[in-house]
Amino acid sequence: MQRDITETVKVFALGGIGEIGKNMYVVEVGQDLFVLDAGLKFPEQEMYGIDLVIPDISYLEKNADRIVGIFITHGHEDHIGAVPYVLKKLPNVTFYVNKLTRSLLLEKLSEQGIKHFNHVVIYDETSSFQFNEASISFFRTTHSIPDSFGFTIHTNQGAIVYTGDFKFDQSKSPYPGADIGKLAVIGDKGVLCLLSDSTNAERQGYSGSEKKVAEEISKEVQNAKGRVIIACFSSNIYRIQQVIDACAQNERKLAVVGASMVKMIEIAKELNYIHIPEDLVISIVDTDNYKESDIVILTTGTQGEPMAALSRIAKGTHKQVSIRKGDTVIMAATPIPGNEMLVSSSVNLLFKAGANVIYGYKKVHVSGHGYDEELKLMLQLMKPKYFIPVHGEFRMQKAHGHIAEEVGISKSNIFIIDKGDSIAFKNKLAIPSERVEVGNILIDGIGIGDVGNIVLRDRKLLSKDGILVVVVTFSKQRKSIISGPEIITRGFVYVRESEKLISKSTDIVKEITERILENDQIEWTLLKNSIRDGLNAYLYEETKRRPMILPILMEI
Amino acid sequence: MQRDITETVKVFALGGIGEIGKNMYVVEVGQDLFVLDAGLKFPEQEMYGIDLVIPDISYLEKNADRIVGIFITHGHEDHIGAVPYVLKKLPNVTFYVNKLTRSLLLEKLSEQGIKHFNHVVIYDETSSFQFNEASISFFRTTHSIPDSFGFTIHTNQGAIVYTGDFKFDQSKSPYPGADIGKLAVIGDKGVLCLLSDSTNAERQGYSGSEKKVAEEISKEVQNAKGRVIIACFSSNIYRIQQVIDACAQNERKLAVVGASMVKMIEIAKELNYIHIPEDLVISIVDTDNYKESDIVILTTGTQGEPMAALSRIAKGTHKQVSIRKGDTVIMAATPIPGNEMLVSSSVNLLFKAGANVIYGYKKVHVSGHGYDEELKLMLQLMKPKYFIPVHGEFRMQKAHGHIAEEVGISKSNIFIIDKGDSIAFKNKLAIPSERVEVGNILIDGIGIGDVGNIVLRDRKLLSKDGILVVVVTFSKQRKSIISGPEIITRGFVYVRESEKLISKSTDIVKEITERILENDQIEWTLLKNSIRDGLNAYLYEETKRRPMILPILMEI
Repeated sequence: MQRDITETVKVFALGGIGEIGKNMYVVEVGQDLFVLDAGLKFPEQEMYGIDLVIPDISYLEKNADRIVGIFITHGHEDHIGAVPYVLKKLPNVTFYVNKLTRSLLLEKLSEQGIKHFNHVVIYDETSSFQFNEASISFFRTTHSIPDSFGFTIHTNQGAIVYTGDFKFDQSKSPYPGADIGKLAVIGDKGVLCLLSDSTNAERQGYSGSEKKVAEEISKEVQNAKGRVIIACFSSNIYRIQQVIDACAQNERKLAVVGASMVKMIEIAKELNYIHIPEDLVISIVDTDNYKESDIVILTTGTQGEPMAALSRIAKGTHKQVSIRKGDTVIMAATPIPGNEMLVSSSVNLLFKAGANVIYGYKKVHVSGHGYDEELKLMLQLMKPKYFIPVHGEFRMQKAHGHIAEEVGISKSNIFIIDKGDSIAFKNKLAIPSERVEVGNILIDGIGIGDVGNIVLRDRKLLSKDGILVVVVTFSKQRKSIISGPEIITRGFVYVRESEKLISKSTDIVKEITERILENDQIEWTLLKNSIRDGLNAYLYEETKRRPMILPILMEI
Repeated sequence: MQRDITETVKVFALGGIGEIGKNMYVVEVGQDLFVLDAGLKFPEQEMYGIDLVIPDISYLEKNADRIVGIFITHGHEDHIGAVPYVLKKLPNVTFYVNKLTRSLLLEKLSEQGIKHFNHVVIYDETSSFQFNEASISFFRTTHSIPDSFGFTIHTNQGAIVYTGDFKFDQSKSPYPGADIGKLAVIGDKGVLCLLSDSTNAERQGYSGSEKKVAEEISKEVQNAKGRVIIACFSSNIYRIQQVIDACAQNERKLAVVGASMVKMIEIAKELNYIHIPEDLVISIVDTDNYKESDIVILTTGTQGEPMAALSRIAKGTHKQVSIRKGDTVIMAATPIPGNEMLVSSSVNLLFKAGANVIYGYKKVHVSGHGYDEELKLMLQLMKPKYFIPVHGEFRMQKAHGHIAEEVGISKSNIFIIDKGDSIAFKNKLAIPSERVEVGNILIDGIGIGDVGNIVLRDRKLLSKDGILVVVVTFSKQRKSIISGPEIITRGFVYVRESEKLISKSTDIVKEITERILENDQIEWTLLKNSIRDGLNAYLYEETKRRPMILPILMEI
């Protein structure tokens, strides 16, 4: 359906800049809402006790009937993680996913007890869907998980292209990836605005080829004298295939450890995405029936996650695997920002346990996100009039903006948009448009969004100097203390060595309470505040600590 | 005094591997104890509320009369930070320090209200001190602070050499650094055991020259159109001089912001360690009397420390400086492991505020610790029989061990020692010796070592899901509840939206209490545990959270 060219096209973000992983973009074409990805973010250091952070979709809830679909580029957490929560709020929306992503989503949903995932359409690079005001088509990209796609939304203002995550890898791969010819055709037809992955915009050159990694892993397996333990992301199916190939080449058996890795191999096998020679895989309990030099163990835990198999192996708390002298451990991934210390501690523990650890600065990993030369190639292929760097932190998007300028896009046509910012296109011209109201949704346990700033502030206070609870039971009639003051502390001082501190505190509370009880009218707030202030001053003087002080008054 | 060659020499560590910064080594020559450095470590993520971690010196306290001195290599926190605490426990021990370190220590001690620092001897490269069983002499090293030294302890078994932190920088420098000829002489006379800095053992090649950094900073200042804000470590006096020189070369005025930077410049000027042209420095309040292109602001905060000047400037909370469009910010340091996220967030905020930020991947910083080729040079110069890699994490010490093997030291002569491990030398042969009992001392506020595992565990629990306090006042005589149950939560749920949860919890406690009060004998522990278990089950079912539950029973 061709409409008047003045129809407005609007692009905005529901995930914020620097909120890595909370990927969710919206392209609004007249009445049609195209939602792109539904990722989640792991909590920041100051978000005490929070499990996950997801995009605030209240705008989508209000406009649920206008959503033509939620389109998912690929199966990584930072693009699918929020789906279970989105599904609860938008049960009737249709998800457009590719084959592998569908399997991963089904698995994820069933883990959370969600059985109904009916409104699902599978797309591939040949698909195209027409809606009221625009259509969408798909192109393959190369990334660290198979079935990664980008989208072209064809509007009457021109095409809006969203790359999803991508790199370029010209070496032969067992998985279909970016088709440069097809990308060039999209660009030749004209792109109004490109939204492109900025994750590695600060890195110069090329991200490197998976083929080199495959060679390096095989070489390390060949050189190892004892067992080889390889850890990688369970979603990195190509890496898993490399490990399988390395086992076959070096006539070693493969044992898989870790629930998510086992599950992923199952899914990938079902979809024919990995190929395992017969008799190659053995159970971990059978590894001791072989020579150590005949064994490879594949597992997860490259990020030092406390519960992951490799972390438990490093700490010596894994039930089935413990490090032996002569083991070679390969960490086939680099730390995600924020995980550096956890990873470092894992590596140290593995070394201490006697393993030879191959990590980081060797060549057993390449990034799934393109470096600046790859980003330039995408920009050259797409030749967009306008450019919005997406994904990654602000500084990376800023760097991506500079790259776009180098490629020839004028500075005034480059927009960095934060959560809620929107760019409107009218008569094929871009204008910053009104903001969309959007916040953060914190997930703690079952609660979605019920933990706010007050709760977080209290958790932070509690984590610093603990809490001191003081209870006084008094009779209003008799104007006297009946029981207490009773003081209980947690996380403040070591109680057995602080008897004097506690007994002096008790005296202070008693004195304050009795003084205020003498008044005609007993003001509870005054009494509570006086107790809090009195204790706070005394305790800070004595310890230079400020525990949370909780006076509880019981009246009988 | 020459003794029988069978006198034992023992080397051990009081700071642990991977406890970066907690540098403290002991060389025991017969009765003489040489203590090398007294550093501190910043707390790990799981050490809630802890301010600092220092070495456990109980071994030194027990053997105080045998300590010939505490020898400090240079003035960085990870080598001097524990001095105020050590001084409290060992008031009569003599400190051997160089000129700059003395000034820095005096400043540090006066900040903590410690006035007495009398037992101090100043050394330089010409000094030598003879004790009962051994003597010590000193050699200069090149590092990111002037007055960095290494030590040679001359024993009748041979020389023990401790490098402190070092790199090599062959370019001309305003500060005296490593004298390769002198190092070669030490090596030629024979070194029994070398303890050498492993911090950058994983990095290949050379750390690079300060001279290049100077050129780069000057170039950036020259290219900047507006103000330039440069942040570096306040202890990096050479870097400060570079900024001063860049100002002079580019005819800009310099304003200094941040208490520690102002103080350091004062100290360095007093010692004649920096040279500032007249009229170059102006007050920050006067900067607005100049064109923006005539101003450089020097400050601290390269690690994203929340209270440092640059962090506050980035957040827009600094009283005197706020970012303007056109400002150039130079971060002349790289993140210390663990600070990556803080630094990243600072950079993002600075970009968002409109600054052009030059950081990390540009050439405005070089490390003060030598890379593998520099470590090889030290090993070649010293030609030690035995080698103990020190400083840095286990994996870095492991890498340093491999480097030593490459240089030709036999694997069996390389020892990685953790906190408490000791190596004894007898008849010039090394043998692992009995461990020294040594732990960790945590500092929280005034308390030194009074926060232990229980307190930390409680803080961790509190930080996750908060606390629920439930108070019941009851009469033992009447076997009934007189007041309550009263439930108060902090950091658990948002109370206004959780009325049902709290009132149901109150019912549960009431029901449990009344049931148990019916018993002939009221068992407090049983009652408390029953309340805790009952609430725990209910709350987890409803929220999937496990707050700390604190039942308080008041009896009248």
